[in-house]
Amino acid sequence: MNTLGHLLTLTTFGESHGPAIGGVLDGFPAGITVDADYVRECMQRRRPGQSTVTTGRQEQDEVEFLSGLLDGVSTGAPIAFIIKNTDQHSSDYDELKDLFRPSHADYAWLQRYGIRDWRGGGRSSARVTAPICVAGALATMALRKLQPGIKISAFTSQIGPYSTDPTKDMEYSDIPVETNPVRCPDQELASKMEEYIKELRKEQDSTGGCVTCIVRGLPAGIGNPVFDKLEASLAGAMLGINAAKGFEYGDGFSAASQRGSEHNDAFRMENGRVTTTSNHSGGIQGGISNGQPVRFRVAFKPTPTIGREQQTVTLKGENTTIAAKGRHDPCVVPRAVPVVEALTSLVILDQWLCGARQE
Amino acid sequence: MNTLGHLLTLTTFGESHGPAIGGVLDGFPAGITVDADYVRECMQRRRPGQSTVTTGRQEQDEVEFLSGLLDGVSTGAPIAFIIKNTDQHSSDYDELKDLFRPSHADYAWLQRYGIRDWRGGGRSSARVTAPICVAGALATMALRKLQPGIKISAFTSQIGPYSTDPTKDMEYSDIPVETNPVRCPDQELASKMEEYIKELRKEQDSTGGCVTCIVRGLPAGIGNPVFDKLEASLAGAMLGINAAKGFEYGDGFSAASQRGSEHNDAFRMENGRVTTTSNHSGGIQGGISNGQPVRFRVAFKPTPTIGREQQTVTLKGENTTIAAKGRHDPCVVPRAVPVVEALTSLVILDQWLCGARQE
Amino acid sequence: MNTLGHLLTLTTFGESHGPAIGGVLDGFPAGITVDADYVRECMQRRRPGQSTVTTGRQEQDEVEFLSGLLDGVSTGAPIAFIIKNTDQHSSDYDELKDLFRPSHADYAWLQRYGIRDWRGGGRSSARVTAPICVAGALATMALRKLQPGIKISAFTSQIGPYSTDPTKDMEYSDIPVETNPVRCPDQELASKMEEYIKELRKEQDSTGGCVTCIVRGLPAGIGNPVFDKLEASLAGAMLGINAAKGFEYGDGFSAASQRGSEHNDAFRMENGRVTTTSNHSGGIQGGISNGQPVRFRVAFKPTPTIGREQQTVTLKGENTTIAAKGRHDPCVVPRAVPVVEALTSLVILDQWLCGARQE
Amino acid sequence: MNTLGHLLTLTTFGESHGPAIGGVLDGFPAGITVDADYVRECMQRRRPGQSTVTTGRQEQDEVEFLSGLLDGVSTGAPIAFIIKNTDQHSSDYDELKDLFRPSHADYAWLQRYGIRDWRGGGRSSARVTAPICVAGALATMALRKLQPGIKISAFTSQIGPYSTDPTKDMEYSDIPVETNPVRCPDQELASKMEEYIKELRKEQDSTGGCVTCIVRGLPAGIGNPVFDKLEASLAGAMLGINAAKGFEYGDGFSAASQRGSEHNDAFRMENGRVTTTSNHSGGIQGGISNGQPVRFRVAFKPTPTIGREQQTVTLKGENTTIAAKGRHDPCVVPRAVPVVEALTSLVILDQWLCGARQE
Repeated sequence: MNTLGHLLTLTTFGESHGPAIGGVLDGFPAGITVDADYVRECMQRRRPGQSTVTTGRQEQDEVEFLSGLLDGVSTGAPIAFIIKNTDQHSSDYDELKDLFRPSHADYAWLQRYGIRDWRGGGRSSARVTAPICVAGALATMALRKLQPGIKISAFTSQIGPYSTDPTKDMEYSDIPVETNPVRCPDQELASKMEEYIKELRKEQDSTGGCVTCIVRGLPAGIGNPVFDKLEASLAGAMLGINAAKGFEYGDGFSAASQRGSEHNDAFRMENGRVTTTSNHSGGIQGGISNGQPVRFRVAFKPTPTIGREQQTVTLKGENTTIAAKGRHDPCVVPRAVPVVEALTSLVILDQWLCGARQE
Repeated sequence: MNTLGHLLTLTTFGESHGPAIGGVLDGFPAGITVDADYVRECMQRRRPGQSTVTTGRQEQDEVEFLSGLLDGVSTGAPIAFIIKNTDQHSSDYDELKDLFRPSHADYAWLQRYGIRDWRGGGRSSARVTAPICVAGALATMALRKLQPGIKISAFTSQIGPYSTDPTKDMEYSDIPVETNPVRCPDQELASKMEEYIKELRKEQDSTGGCVTCIVRGLPAGIGNPVFDKLEASLAGAMLGINAAKGFEYGDGFSAASQRGSEHNDAFRMENGRVTTTSNHSGGIQGGISNGQPVRFRVAFKPTPTIGREQQTVTLKGENTTIAAKGRHDPCVVPRAVPVVEALTSLVILDQWLCGARQE
Repeated sequence: MNTLGHLLTLTTFGESHGPAIGGVLDGFPAGITVDADYVRECMQRRRPGQSTVTTGRQEQDEVEFLSGLLDGVSTGAPIAFIIKNTDQHSSDYDELKDLFRPSHADYAWLQRYGIRDWRGGGRSSARVTAPICVAGALATMALRKLQPGIKISAFTSQIGPYSTDPTKDMEYSDIPVETNPVRCPDQELASKMEEYIKELRKEQDSTGGCVTCIVRGLPAGIGNPVFDKLEASLAGAMLGINAAKGFEYGDGFSAASQRGSEHNDAFRMENGRVTTTSNHSGGIQGGISNGQPVRFRVAFKPTPTIGREQQTVTLKGENTTIAAKGRHDPCVVPRAVPVVEALTSLVILDQWLCGARQE
Repeated sequence: MNTLGHLLTLTTFGESHGPAIGGVLDGFPAGITVDADYVRECMQRRRPGQSTVTTGRQEQDEVEFLSGLLDGVSTGAPIAFIIKNTDQHSSDYDELKDLFRPSHADYAWLQRYGIRDWRGGGRSSARVTAPICVAGALATMALRKLQPGIKISAFTSQIGPYSTDPTKDMEYSDIPVETNPVRCPDQELASKMEEYIKELRKEQDSTGGCVTCIVRGLPAGIGNPVFDKLEASLAGAMLGINAAKGFEYGDGFSAASQRGSEHNDAFRMENGRVTTTSNHSGGIQGGISNGQPVRFRVAFKPTPTIGREQQTVTLKGENTTIAAKGRHDPCVVPRAVPVVEALTSLVILDQWLCGARQE
């Protein structure tokens, strides 16, 4: 239940306010040199407290590798790592002990397990995505070696009312997104998004948004035809991110209003290789990559924690109200960008390893 | 790779033009009486050749159970079943042997396996959803016994330009959809959808659409908090249906433009029980059901097989054109409705069994 | 629960007296030509009714392949197959309906599932090993192509008081065992074993025995170091055979009384390659093959069904007696020989595919 | 590959000489109070350096829990824990860097992964059993609550030439074994075993042995009928212990020479409950527990590391000799006793949880 993948498995653990969070990445190819700076960089991107648009919580987020590496090279043994929780303000959550925060996991968790770690969302905190970023960085390093030329780029494609133009997805994916705090490749739109988030912060409110991800350089033939389709694995992984509400690939939901003559991607020969004249399919046909760029989008709901007063109930079953005081993002989307990339790396490497067995 | 589920697993097999298709349902609770008529009914709903809006292929789709039942009652042993392929026109596909149909799995499959069953899509045919309907019918019978009051209802919510009103989803889910061939609960809209599909058939074109599904009566506490979230399991299963392009639950993609104050579902006490004043969450919070109706939507692309001439390439790498002659649906959506219900039953029963272990 | 393997999975189904038994082999490499005669031959070896030492039940055991093959070549799709049950004498079992046969699964099954298929052992019948032989034959054909030179040979090494000399295991494995009905490579011993079984049949009794298996030509590097060790996979598979009571590899239980200086296999260079001067390890060190022949042994208990009167209890909880009348083997060991080989092929191919991913 | 179990999964990690070893126990029931002293006690039993018969390596083996507990009670979240490696003498292993130790995993590992952590066996060190003991202690605590009356007791039943009487297994299992360093319930035999080990230490040699395990109070109905039989799960787990060479349950290998009339366990009513008049089956019939005590035995080879000079080869492929200097046990068996118990607890709880779903 806390494990993702088939041959490459990531098991994560840890709660928001426990001693540490971490993960175990098993089935990782041996002989991959781990660039600790790159891992740190991937972690930093997800880390809160980076800018005015994110939460003020300051986590050092230092990764300690406990196993699976010898002089920085993977040995084939499981790679375990931990990130200590250092900046915990558990007392921020004291008043949450006896009530359920609206649209949080609090109530559902209690019904599932009969006991709840009420401190900062416990296991349901967005903090659990940090180990995903570490593992994703490792997967990316392996993919770079095993499948040179592969490139996974995600970016913010929507924040509230501001959306990028989906026909420009391929262009966008070439633009570095670290130049602005919302990670949107359209700088003008990025300014509006940033402004919007700041405004919502003042209003003690929050907003949703979308992340788009492009995988270039994935060869044709990765995936499976029925229950473990590439798109199904990606969807399952993405819906595992906190606050994710939807997944679509290629033309996605807009394909519902298209005609076949409009949606179909014609095959053509180009420089002696099979290609398609369009990519409505999003690089996947029948569950298997077709050699075109993989393109998908993930929708996120607004952060449920807001400063405004909301109705809720107590553990004892009495109606009450709540107004959040902790440090929270008015929008999780910019920080979800590296998480989407990390999960994509993990899914692709796993499917790659599963498929590579026959060569 | 052809297996779905954890404690309850469905393994399917079979190609469009082989001797038979079928499945093995393992982990099914013992002591469930199987109503053969209900299974047949579920199969019939998915079966092609039912009306003017679907393909003319006539499959009898008779299910033979091979194991796991004693006098019609499940014994705990795996339930295997087959459906013989009887109305195969393999010759219809002869000319497809040497080329790739646009937006079909043909090319990707060949890259994956180096060999391809070119007859009617082989393993990638929509016919593989028939065993899912059988297994789903069984799962529904088990759920009715184990969790009385549970009800899973799917319906067509979009065909091309015609969409139902999402705010009426709960009302719709109470209306029988077998009264019209498109399975849309809004009769007026249904007529327009039917007309639209007929029109496209004449134009040798096809259309996409959406299916919405509602699960009532699911108790709070079903699901998991991180990688095996209820929504992730549903998304993974749904994206396994042929032609599926997207999945969203609750407010889904529209949550991306909402504010937290608008999206959050306030908890309230009602008749001594915890409930929510709205259901933007779609019945799932933090990966676990919260006792409200589960609501999600699946997008399907237009049928890729169309009568119009399209560009493509041959196995030898030459440009050519193709115009389909086989019997095909201009729209898969009405037939996807029972498949969505079946997969939902399977996912819910599996998660129910996994969660029930602690009681 | 009815599935074996990781990347290569075999799911079996079927009861002794239902319509059919069968299996689904998934993850099987594409492009393997299936020799139907070889499959039939493997089936025949396991089939009852072959000689005076086995049960009189006459099953035709014709395999029907339902999927995964195109003109006799595997396509990468799951290979499903069934074997119809034709020679069922369910009435033989009528009197067993209301009581538990000693040392059979009857009582334990009923406690597990609350319902029991009493006809011939149902799912717990030795007949469930037939699909294993089919799948094993397929795995052997794949191994021959992927790893030329590999050879898996099992033989009867003990029947009651008659045992082969373990120091001659390698010699034995080169001798064809189909020349005598007990499948023992030592012809003189074989005659004694055959005589012993005939004697027990007369005495309405039964006997246990052992099967030894040798895998030659397996390269070093197959297996895993901790929980999925090659020996653990083999042990788990072998203990799944009906009546199996024990598993040992290399020197096995006799290693318990050895000294390290006696047991250790010294490494030596031979013709420029690493080899060992002995093989007490049985070809596996630390869970991974070391390039030497893999050698293991499986113990089987005496067939529990005997003609002699035994004490037992009824479903209603009354003491009673039972004396079997059905057709049963006084010794399952000769028929277990092909089953051991089949499972070995399946385990080795699965581990081979899992390990091959990194090359 | 480093994960054991189905609903209850233990993933372990860590090498002998890395920063830490540990594990993640997922699927553990919520609401179990963890007795830290009991965990420590289980760890201590496995710990080296306890007596004259074990290695001199002094590990503090302090367990740190990182997640899954709130005020000492399990929350349903994965329980991660680490044990820091403190007493590492990596330099002891310097000379092993360039050669393969006979009958160790060194050579096989290198062939599998192309890279090897040569320090103290790396991932193949017996030290990896420490996390198993922690997880087993947790599983035992859960079993005590979920299935009161269950009791798992293992003991040393053989060291070299000294064996206990198998007909006294049930008596032995009631005798505390911590009273002597070899953990043998027969005190007289224990003294001889201890003497024998000391003698071997002087001779720079080592010995094998056996551990017997008894599970009382397991209800009938736990396990599965075909591939995931209770005995197969136990065998797979036990063969995962370092140096394990064989597994047998009930009468095991001696059943091979028995007759059915001798081996069969007759059912009888006793005080209104079904029981058996003997227990040759070892408490399992057809893969499922039958309510009688589960009884099995595991064989271990002599410790491969010995002080005597042995032949071996170098990484470069040259013949050479080796004589171990590190700190090593002349016999792993006494320390394997708690590991066998721990794995038994894990397997039983997992199967219990899987089976409990239907009630």
